[in-house]
Amino acid sequence: MKQLKYVVLARRASQIKEELRQGVRKPYNDVIDVIWGDSHRAGVKPLSFVRQVLAACIYPQLMNGDRLPVDVRERAQRLLGECAGGSVGSYTATAGTPQIVQRISEFITRRDSGAPSHPENIYISPGSQWSLMNILEVLVNNEASTKTGILTPVPCYWATNVSIMELGAVIVPYYLSEEQGWELQVEELHRALESAKGVCNPVALYVINPGNPSGHIQTRKSMQEVIRFVSEKRLFLLADEVYQGCVYRDKSEFVSYKRVLAEMGPPLSDTVELASFHSASKGFMGECGLRGGYVELVNLDPDVMKHINNLFSKDSCAPMLGQMALDLMMNPPQPGDPSYHLYNIETQHIRTTLVHNVQRALAVVNSLQGFSCQPVQGGAFLFPRLHLPPKAIQKAKELGMQPDTFYCLRLLEEAGVLASPGSEYGQKNGTHHIRFCIMTPGDIMEELLNRLTSFHTQFMKDFS
Amino acid sequence: MKQLKYVVLARRASQIKEELRQGVRKPYNDVIDVIWGDSHRAGVKPLSFVRQVLAACIYPQLMNGDRLPVDVRERAQRLLGECAGGSVGSYTATAGTPQIVQRISEFITRRDSGAPSHPENIYISPGSQWSLMNILEVLVNNEASTKTGILTPVPCYWATNVSIMELGAVIVPYYLSEEQGWELQVEELHRALESAKGVCNPVALYVINPGNPSGHIQTRKSMQEVIRFVSEKRLFLLADEVYQGCVYRDKSEFVSYKRVLAEMGPPLSDTVELASFHSASKGFMGECGLRGGYVELVNLDPDVMKHINNLFSKDSCAPMLGQMALDLMMNPPQPGDPSYHLYNIETQHIRTTLVHNVQRALAVVNSLQGFSCQPVQGGAFLFPRLHLPPKAIQKAKELGMQPDTFYCLRLLEEAGVLASPGSEYGQKNGTHHIRFCIMTPGDIMEELLNRLTSFHTQFMKDFS
Repeated sequence: MKQLKYVVLARRASQIKEELRQGVRKPYNDVIDVIWGDSHRAGVKPLSFVRQVLAACIYPQLMNGDRLPVDVRERAQRLLGECAGGSVGSYTATAGTPQIVQRISEFITRRDSGAPSHPENIYISPGSQWSLMNILEVLVNNEASTKTGILTPVPCYWATNVSIMELGAVIVPYYLSEEQGWELQVEELHRALESAKGVCNPVALYVINPGNPSGHIQTRKSMQEVIRFVSEKRLFLLADEVYQGCVYRDKSEFVSYKRVLAEMGPPLSDTVELASFHSASKGFMGECGLRGGYVELVNLDPDVMKHINNLFSKDSCAPMLGQMALDLMMNPPQPGDPSYHLYNIETQHIRTTLVHNVQRALAVVNSLQGFSCQPVQGGAFLFPRLHLPPKAIQKAKELGMQPDTFYCLRLLEEAGVLASPGSEYGQKNGTHHIRFCIMTPGDIMEELLNRLTSFHTQFMKDFS
Repeated sequence: MKQLKYVVLARRASQIKEELRQGVRKPYNDVIDVIWGDSHRAGVKPLSFVRQVLAACIYPQLMNGDRLPVDVRERAQRLLGECAGGSVGSYTATAGTPQIVQRISEFITRRDSGAPSHPENIYISPGSQWSLMNILEVLVNNEASTKTGILTPVPCYWATNVSIMELGAVIVPYYLSEEQGWELQVEELHRALESAKGVCNPVALYVINPGNPSGHIQTRKSMQEVIRFVSEKRLFLLADEVYQGCVYRDKSEFVSYKRVLAEMGPPLSDTVELASFHSASKGFMGECGLRGGYVELVNLDPDVMKHINNLFSKDSCAPMLGQMALDLMMNPPQPGDPSYHLYNIETQHIRTTLVHNVQRALAVVNSLQGFSCQPVQGGAFLFPRLHLPPKAIQKAKELGMQPDTFYCLRLLEEAGVLASPGSEYGQKNGTHHIRFCIMTPGDIMEELLNRLTSFHTQFMKDFS
């Protein structure tokens, strides 16, 4: 497996942090770490309600007295009642605590305007990526003479591609259209599928909506086309929907594949095989470190479901606090609850900040010569295109680096900003990008944009 | 994959609990759930110090004021300082938070009387079983024409065997000697290895010490023999040492394979490849639901280490609270710390209870006609042998069940005790066993033994 560049960058960032601690003088006092989709790392504060409930579950003595709001105590009491032995320290069922799984299915039904969801089709895991691995393991057939192919977008979250390759399958890339705001175009899916002929046997299409790193949100029409495509080509549809809570533009709307499929009616709604992934790590909650995600499976063959059930059963359960975080994400305080006011202020603050961050970042980046960025509708990232001068590309080549990796390393060294290169996600030959997380407090985004502006201006001058 | 019997039993137990909730009359009011090595589930209380620190990390406002002891607040402050963005909601490095990994290596060095331990050889994961899977994945070669073999004990924790088979490898069973208190005898390892000839290519020996389910603790001499054996036969040594904190008999002592290997000196100490597993789930802490374990790797080829590093990197980090639990397990309060007194009382209480439970359970079980149990030195289980009457065996056969599964189902139905059958772990042909967790409060153990006695007496009468 190739060494991932983000590892190199993250390692150098750790060294720089250590150097700063030891008093080494640099043009900056700290590293702004926006390489991950990790809002807490980038300085966003956790939601009080979530943390209060979890703290009370961890240390139930906190429920004595009235230090915590009454709805927090009630919620914690209820969640603890669902733990074996009344402790978050007990194992749960391997698919997750049954009551939480049940409430996830209710959340999905609400979200999808009534499209039915069945608890027995839902598996909680330590993060959505982990579920995806299990489903891929079932899809990939290493005993066949022809390798299994999985259609994945370019650009794509790198970990998925690594997982697919590790399983011995072949990545069949389809390109999102940057010029059309990173739209998924069904003609491109046809081209990609055609390209796989004689190379591998494609069995699944992987989509990320809202896009990572693209920030694009698919329209219902586009999703309908995708569903017809997978039905016609008999592909399994893997829908990574972990950024469903992050929508920034007024006219943009997240609709789940499950819902679009249900609304298309039979025969499609009864036949297209779909796995939809969600997570407590993303969205406004941002609880990556607790490790909780789930997958919902639709229209799977009962024999395949049995196999998947075995796969999920061989590992122990997901961490109970990650499961609880999922539950709280799906069932936040309601108007009238004592915690509602603060919860509402905190989430509104995060939303307002993010909308502002996206607008500011787009405005600044698009104002810089050598940068251009498509509108961002959702997700956690900006993924602007870098138009690098030939001299910079030449320099990178001499150093044996991808040009955008070279750019990111310089950005880190000179401006203390840790972002990742587009080459990590895949991009059209000859194009370059960088990705950075926009889920930060407003002042950190301003500082980041200031540093980026100064650095970039100098970089373009140096290599002009 | 065969349906595991514990799943059938656990499912029936859930139904019975539901029936009890609905008021169905049974000869008992609750199910005593001792099928897992899960002390909180069985009613043991979590340690206050651990839960206080974790609660403060989750909700740092708890550190304001003096409601929590000062060492709890200091510990939480320090741990939070090691989290990116100061939040347990951030991702950590995939091998674990570097400072915690460092302290694990210090713990190992202390435990092993100075045998050196290197942080770069340690990986934290969501439970030790998960690490074991990753190491097995590296050991199993599915491209060779001969299948990979792994020597595993009989009886053995079932999840390991399932994992090995799922990876496409062959289990090469070696039998522990029940008559000698479940001793591991090196002649039996030779026999097992011989038996693999022409069947598979054995590459590793898996040992569980203290034993699960056997409760046996290996002597230094036995471990030295095992080390010489794996060295001579060029086998990788997988040492599952998750019950190292659970030692009950005065003369028994847990010594790690790492230490024995180091003390044997070169060339063995420089060449034998070893993976040692430990976990926050077991021992007196019993925090299964937080999901934290680690593996230490010794004498591995740098190329193999690189591959293992990639395997651990492709998944996200272990849950931060599980990592913190590991840290607290290895660095408990010390004499003089404000939390020491309570911590000491709580752990002593657990220890005294367990020692008493083991003595009581052994005395009761051995007093019953049709039961015999070897001394238990450590671990979390009693694994007595069941001498079933021919009529009971006949009845089970008619029902298409293993005789001990039949016994466990009846025990559950009639006495509300959820234990697991020996056939789940492997046993010599014609022998039968049951396994139950002895990490329970004293009164629950008494109730369990009462129910078991009545049930068993009646069962033996019914089938005499």
